Amino acid sequence: MNYKIDNLQYCNWSRDVFKINREAGLDAVHVTIVYHEDYDELLTEIKKWSVYFKENSDLIFMGKGFEDIEKARLNNKTAIFFGFQNCSPIEDNINLVEKVHDLGCRFMQLTYNNQSLLATGCYEKIDSGVTNFGKEVIKEMNRVGIVVDMSHSAEKSTFDAIEFSEKPIAITHANPTFWHTAKRNKSNDLIKALGESDGMLGLSLYPHHLKNNSNCTLDNFCEMVAKTTEIINVENIGIGSDLCLNQPDSVVEWMRNGTWAKNKNYGEGSKNKSGFPKQPKWFEDARGFLNLEKGLKKIGFSDDETNGILGNNWYNFYKKI
Amino acid sequence: MNYKIDNLQYCNWSRDVFKINREAGLDAVHVTIVYHEDYDELLTEIKKWSVYFKENSDLIFMGKGFEDIEKARLNNKTAIFFGFQNCSPIEDNINLVEKVHDLGCRFMQLTYNNQSLLATGCYEKIDSGVTNFGKEVIKEMNRVGIVVDMSHSAEKSTFDAIEFSEKPIAITHANPTFWHTAKRNKSNDLIKALGESDGMLGLSLYPHHLKNNSNCTLDNFCEMVAKTTEIINVENIGIGSDLCLNQPDSVVEWMRNGTWAKNKNYGEGSKNKSGFPKQPKWFEDARGFLNLEKGLKKIGFSDDETNGILGNNWYNFYKKI
Repeated sequence: MNYKIDNLQYCNWSRDVFKINREAGLDAVHVTIVYHEDYDELLTEIKKWSVYFKENSDLIFMGKGFEDIEKARLNNKTAIFFGFQNCSPIEDNINLVEKVHDLGCRFMQLTYNNQSLLATGCYEKIDSGVTNFGKEVIKEMNRVGIVVDMSHSAEKSTFDAIEFSEKPIAITHANPTFWHTAKRNKSNDLIKALGESDGMLGLSLYPHHLKNNSNCTLDNFCEMVAKTTEIINVENIGIGSDLCLNQPDSVVEWMRNGTWAKNKNYGEGSKNKSGFPKQPKWFEDARGFLNLEKGLKKIGFSDDETNGILGNNWYNFYKKI
Repeated sequence: MNYKIDNLQYCNWSRDVFKINREAGLDAVHVTIVYHEDYDELLTEIKKWSVYFKENSDLIFMGKGFEDIEKARLNNKTAIFFGFQNCSPIEDNINLVEKVHDLGCRFMQLTYNNQSLLATGCYEKIDSGVTNFGKEVIKEMNRVGIVVDMSHSAEKSTFDAIEFSEKPIAITHANPTFWHTAKRNKSNDLIKALGESDGMLGLSLYPHHLKNNSNCTLDNFCEMVAKTTEIINVENIGIGSDLCLNQPDSVVEWMRNGTWAKNKNYGEGSKNKSGFPKQPKWFEDARGFLNLEKGLKKIGFSDDETNGILGNNWYNFYKKI
């Protein structure tokens, strides 16, 4: 059985988006449900999701474990796995880790771009690594079954997370720096260490992470994937598209600024390009998985390898965790 | 006019404690009202204080500016200034800085012992300094008039705070490391930089910060004060006793552990000495200010210098801020 999994989307959720994901044949999607929301605000978001599940029960359902990916395939639906892009929902309380797991959380970034209580984000000048509280939280995430996601974290913090976590971690949505230099992309050394610890790298289709941004070509993207397998086994590579379909620009402002500054920060954008960037034509939405399939095969990946990258590798990772 | 100010107490507040502070002649006390409480929990604590103020209006009132210290002296009362020992009440929201100031907050530590969103605490292995959010918060604290307090912070973070803050900062309760090595005490270099920036050092009477702990002698403490004036001007020295009168041991557990670990951390104590340490006999409560006065004069401080250390220096600092 070959599964298709997009291991990071943060769309403006609607029946249309769920339909597109079905057309793309996605058996599972890891969706970001919160960024900098605290625990109470998380509960509000989860209430919204219970409405989505109810109103679109023919298309989606809540995923809790790898069996739900199998169930999704059998029922022609998409299993939705919850994730957080910042650790704000657990506030400063170790006991909330289990609570958010009970609520469905399966991935949590230890930090977004800034310093968190757990680790350092990639936009800070100095990276002190995983904190005292961070170590405790990783232990607890391992225990309850939440994947440590370091996509937006700084380098030393990510090395620390790989070291401290007893279970493999994930970088759900980032690309290698050797291909495109961006604060959010990852060095060869880090990708190597991730692979050696059996962690997963979800390659991103977000234009700021792509060479030539919105003008990145499919061929060039697939060449990058091929080169990346020289650093990390192909079995440890998947897709985390970082698709932000139909999101208004106010959302990227929230992602980048939270409530921690009075002046606007443009993150990976700039004052003139403050909004969401345009997707490359071959990946305007998840239906781009079909293009990826063609491109990966064209560059020389076998059917097995291609299927691995497009979903089976994530499926196996879910199964292990 | 000579004022007496204890610029850090965290007692189990009661009419008895307020009476003791009056007997000690304290015109002002900076009281810790929260540690790791979030904004809502802060509101609960402030409600408790409004009851204290109402029920003890013959002894205390809420202080907001230096004029309240003068008013306290005129009315034979103690002005109570609110402070936080961690930045938890502002959560991750820059706009809460002004709100907590409106509620009376006049001192806020950027961090307790652990990493916070603003800076690194003295119990972390690596100190990355003041964070991006921390810089924004310092700017806002300067604007609204909350003193940056770095008593529990790590060294680089404290140097950063001195550099980034446009107004002088305070270390409200700590002693020099040259006298007693403790994670919470401060190096000569740091004390020097603090003085050069016209910041205040509040010397602590908390046994874990004292040479020979509970057995520290008054003479030895006063010798330390004299030596400290070789590093920082006497005008920049005050008292922040860190008195935790009548607190049950459950409180020190909360201070040290918050909700960030499943195992207990004993902080400056140990498993066998997990509770609050015993105060030295000459400073069992604020009435020890009378002993300090004798001791400081005995070691050679002039009347002016002694009065400065016991309150006037803090008064002048309040006036400047």
